[in-house]
Amino acid sequence: MSAVVEPTPFPTAVDGSILTARGAATRARLLEAAEAVFAEHGWEQASIVKITERALVSQGTFYRYWESKQAIFDDLVEDLNRRVRRAMAEGAARGANRAEAERYGFEGFFRFTAEHPALYRVIRQAEFASPDALRHHYEKIAEGYVEALETAMGRGEVVAADPELIAYALMGIGELVGMRWILWAGTKKVPDDLVDQLMEFIQRGLGIER
Amino acid sequence: MSAVVEPTPFPTAVDGSILTARGAATRARLLEAAEAVFAEHGWEQASIVKITERALVSQGTFYRYWESKQAIFDDLVEDLNRRVRRAMAEGAARGANRAEAERYGFEGFFRFTAEHPALYRVIRQAEFASPDALRHHYEKIAEGYVEALETAMGRGEVVAADPELIAYALMGIGELVGMRWILWAGTKKVPDDLVDQLMEFIQRGLGIER
Repeated sequence: MSAVVEPTPFPTAVDGSILTARGAATRARLLEAAEAVFAEHGWEQASIVKITERALVSQGTFYRYWESKQAIFDDLVEDLNRRVRRAMAEGAARGANRAEAERYGFEGFFRFTAEHPALYRVIRQAEFASPDALRHHYEKIAEGYVEALETAMGRGEVVAADPELIAYALMGIGELVGMRWILWAGTKKVPDDLVDQLMEFIQRGLGIER
Repeated sequence: MSAVVEPTPFPTAVDGSILTARGAATRARLLEAAEAVFAEHGWEQASIVKITERALVSQGTFYRYWESKQAIFDDLVEDLNRRVRRAMAEGAARGANRAEAERYGFEGFFRFTAEHPALYRVIRQAEFASPDALRHHYEKIAEGYVEALETAMGRGEVVAADPELIAYALMGIGELVGMRWILWAGTKKVPDDLVDQLMEFIQRGLGIER
């Protein structure tokens, strides 16, 4: 992963007007509350009341930013998506070559997952709450990956193969290894020696010379 | 994947009594209906009424087999889990070596996914409906994989590494590639040339000599 992630758009109110700094901070607090509420209660049981109570704002304030539970959910998925891609891209950008970019990109993803364990629960409930958002989430991550892989394949750093296929394979590896060692394990971290072994598996798979 | 999958237990009634052939058939029809209802409506909106209407049996009949929506959901996850593992193991067993076992195991998984697209939706809603069932699902699949990988590592067919790590990596690859090319694509199938490329990636990753 090393594609550039688009900047966060200016947050707007429901009427499309740009928010003041204070308004933007309130909106961010509501999104943070929504992340916790959707993760804890799930789509059906989550409610605008629960979100506003958690964010300590009035319901009227909520409606300045979103029209519905669906609207804040969709924004939350997009927000998490942008942030996880940024964590991966910032990691990858530190790599001097494809092998390092892959390692730091995975580390960025694992770190984000440890800080935002809600990511998995929110994305999984999107299956029903917002199927398009679910698909969009994976497609956006794949996009950045494909770009980076195409570049590396063009340079002969990585064996030529369908870049989208390899992108989904790598995303799957990150998702299930993160689930097993970050979400389930008490340590909340993929142990270093396992990251080493995983990178060896991936580098061999990609045909990266070391 | 080549571990032996345990036989399907004799289906029983709520009181623990073994069912007649006809009772077992009714129970199977209810499970099939539940698969469709949970996939279509999701955990919250799914109901015993919807399941019995779809299976064309009375509600009283439902309660001979399960006590609640939760109970049939948990049985459904276990049933899908056993069947997907069997599809993978039967595929893998046809392989003459680790490379073939891996290929046929993946093909078994992809075929099962095409026939049971509900698998993903049911497992994802288990995140909330039955978190233990979700974890159990992955752990059972990993178990069989670990066994097969340990054997292959012992024989030097595969590079030595933490077998559980490699198992989750391979499961992740299957899950996201299946999502992208079976659930999302109109073809409902991972194209043969992509399966070829995927197997090359995996074989290189595992360090399988070809």
